[in-house]
Amino acid sequence: MRHVYEQVDGSVTAPRGFRAAGVACGIKANAALDLALLASDLPASAAGVFTTNLAQAAPVLVSRAQLQKSGAAIRAVVVNSGCANACTGPVGMRDATAMMERAAAGLGIDPSAVLVASTGVIGVQLPMEHVARGIDAAVRSLSPDGGPSAARAIMTTDPFPKEAAVEAHADAGTFRVGGIAKGSGMIEPLMATMLGFVTLDAAVEPALLHRALKAACNDTFNAITVDGECSTNDCVVALANGASGVALGEPDYAFLVDALRQVCEPLAVGIVRGGEGATKLVTVRVAGAMSNDQARQAARAIANSPLVKTAIHGGDPNWGRLVAVMGRSGSAFSLEHAAVRIGPVELFKDGTPHDERAPEAAEYLRGKEIEVDVDLGTGGTGRSHMWTCDLSAEYVRINADYRT
Amino acid sequence: MRHVYEQVDGSVTAPRGFRAAGVACGIKANAALDLALLASDLPASAAGVFTTNLAQAAPVLVSRAQLQKSGAAIRAVVVNSGCANACTGPVGMRDATAMMERAAAGLGIDPSAVLVASTGVIGVQLPMEHVARGIDAAVRSLSPDGGPSAARAIMTTDPFPKEAAVEAHADAGTFRVGGIAKGSGMIEPLMATMLGFVTLDAAVEPALLHRALKAACNDTFNAITVDGECSTNDCVVALANGASGVALGEPDYAFLVDALRQVCEPLAVGIVRGGEGATKLVTVRVAGAMSNDQARQAARAIANSPLVKTAIHGGDPNWGRLVAVMGRSGSAFSLEHAAVRIGPVELFKDGTPHDERAPEAAEYLRGKEIEVDVDLGTGGTGRSHMWTCDLSAEYVRINADYRT
Repeated sequence: MRHVYEQVDGSVTAPRGFRAAGVACGIKANAALDLALLASDLPASAAGVFTTNLAQAAPVLVSRAQLQKSGAAIRAVVVNSGCANACTGPVGMRDATAMMERAAAGLGIDPSAVLVASTGVIGVQLPMEHVARGIDAAVRSLSPDGGPSAARAIMTTDPFPKEAAVEAHADAGTFRVGGIAKGSGMIEPLMATMLGFVTLDAAVEPALLHRALKAACNDTFNAITVDGECSTNDCVVALANGASGVALGEPDYAFLVDALRQVCEPLAVGIVRGGEGATKLVTVRVAGAMSNDQARQAARAIANSPLVKTAIHGGDPNWGRLVAVMGRSGSAFSLEHAAVRIGPVELFKDGTPHDERAPEAAEYLRGKEIEVDVDLGTGGTGRSHMWTCDLSAEYVRINADYRT
Repeated sequence: MRHVYEQVDGSVTAPRGFRAAGVACGIKANAALDLALLASDLPASAAGVFTTNLAQAAPVLVSRAQLQKSGAAIRAVVVNSGCANACTGPVGMRDATAMMERAAAGLGIDPSAVLVASTGVIGVQLPMEHVARGIDAAVRSLSPDGGPSAARAIMTTDPFPKEAAVEAHADAGTFRVGGIAKGSGMIEPLMATMLGFVTLDAAVEPALLHRALKAACNDTFNAITVDGECSTNDCVVALANGASGVALGEPDYAFLVDALRQVCEPLAVGIVRGGEGATKLVTVRVAGAMSNDQARQAARAIANSPLVKTAIHGGDPNWGRLVAVMGRSGSAFSLEHAAVRIGPVELFKDGTPHDERAPEAAEYLRGKEIEVDVDLGTGGTGRSHMWTCDLSAEYVRINADYRT
């Protein structure tokens, strides 16, 4: 299947037949947007990937059950920020269910066609009067231009909204994929992700959509980290409503994954770029591993290393720290054949340091987009990548004062 | 065997028959002490535990081989700070060997009776002229009161030296155990530790000493973390020279472990207390796990969580972050029966938050010594502990500027 992608505006409302809204209902202070509603005019196939954390928030448990029951006919997703509704016991479960019911009543649909998500501080109960008022207001505000507003309403410590949309031109016809995501701290999704919502106006069976979503997440949302913390509320939900008239089936699987990746990758990279306290986007590429999994494991260790992240923050080409992490990552490693490159500068090769090139690498590190390439030296062909950010004093400030 | 311990001064030179020195030879700037020598008047049994990092520094490789060859008759350990001699290729191996030979020549002993260790920046070659001059000066300065000076000479970013010594009174007689350690960043030793040197004036077979040292490290040096980073140069070496006339054998194993632990625990806790940027010492205790190993795994995840460490730094009783880490640690976990206590304040129990007690916990967090107790809620009897420190903006400052 021949296919061409074109960037378009509008995020989750770029695909036909989707409306969205973002409103302020008082969960957050300062009248900030804190409640989002996403609605599909047609019943949509839905698929979700959820956090692997064993402490799962109420909305995760409720939406997961909902998807199993009625993943073929989802009409809306209601989301609040400012409160994660996690570790909130039976009250939290009741509140998550009440959010779906309130949205369903406002939209005149069955509650089983609604999904729910929450993000924010853990262990605090939702202020349900505010939330109910917010849902009603969001129903009234739903609009085919509402995607950007919804993208803002799901933010917590995010410095900017994360949105993406493409138009896919294929033999089968033209359809669109759009998405929004949030996340800035507690980011290392692991087989899941932070809040992400992806819409398609192609028709796709739920099981195929789920397989494609998992595959697309693996190299996008699951390849990012800010601080190595996997949250209680992570989820990515994809809705495919068929409004374009294009139907994608099993033979289109690879194309579907690719189309989803077109939207998921910029959203995922956007999360890292807006990571708490981040001043630099860092792409870590690992080669010379015994397998792709071992390469990912080493890339993950480097991407989470506080010593690597602080060195990059300080513009210090401290490649010795990279070698130290490669050696402790748990992946096979041979110091005699390992290599480290920061940007274009090779600083370590075949067991020999080239520290005389450090000034050149220091110059490169003054940039905002940093690439680090390492070879584990095993002679294997395994390779992988991760996106991370630097670790700054601002990260500490944000998280030492999060609730105060 | 009846036994009583008494704290004594003098660190590694508290046991009889040991002399030490710390001198400045110009590896570090500002005439700071940077070379230490520890010598035993009698051939000592020696045992070592070394880093599990696959990128092992030259002195680690050399000392490991030395111990296998002549672990029953070690006479000296030479140590430099300011340069780790790691990732330095064949030149580094030659330099590590040259350090042993120079010390042996000065002391009039065989080079096979000398061990070597280095700590500092990775990937830079040792300035061997300075080092040679330093070794000669250290040989001339050796003294039975030199322990505290050696403790200073092995420091890098450490804010204070780590020293401990006890006198053990047992049926078999009276002997002493002393130790020094260094370490402040790149600290999560894992089956090994940072630089630590422990002396005993009891006689102990090398194999027994090795088993006892491993056991003592497990609950001390291997139960600490500052930043989750396992270094290329970690090692703890124990020397037993028998100068007290007391001999310990297989029946004394438990007692020997206990005696070593008397010295290793305050050294290990001292490393955390002096962790880079640390303002608080945090003891993490985990109960209700399926096994002690699973408890240690959860304790390790909590102790390394940047969100937990920044919350404690900011005095924020953000117990939800603790639950989130418990849920992602990889150990079995049941949210419905889990519990979190910060100091004396129970903030989460049986799936129900008690966030109304947060102000009381915030008051407790103003202290400098913090205890965190969590229960994984599995009903199992596994328990373990870790020591860690808070994460401050000062950690970032230290590590963003380490080489500049």
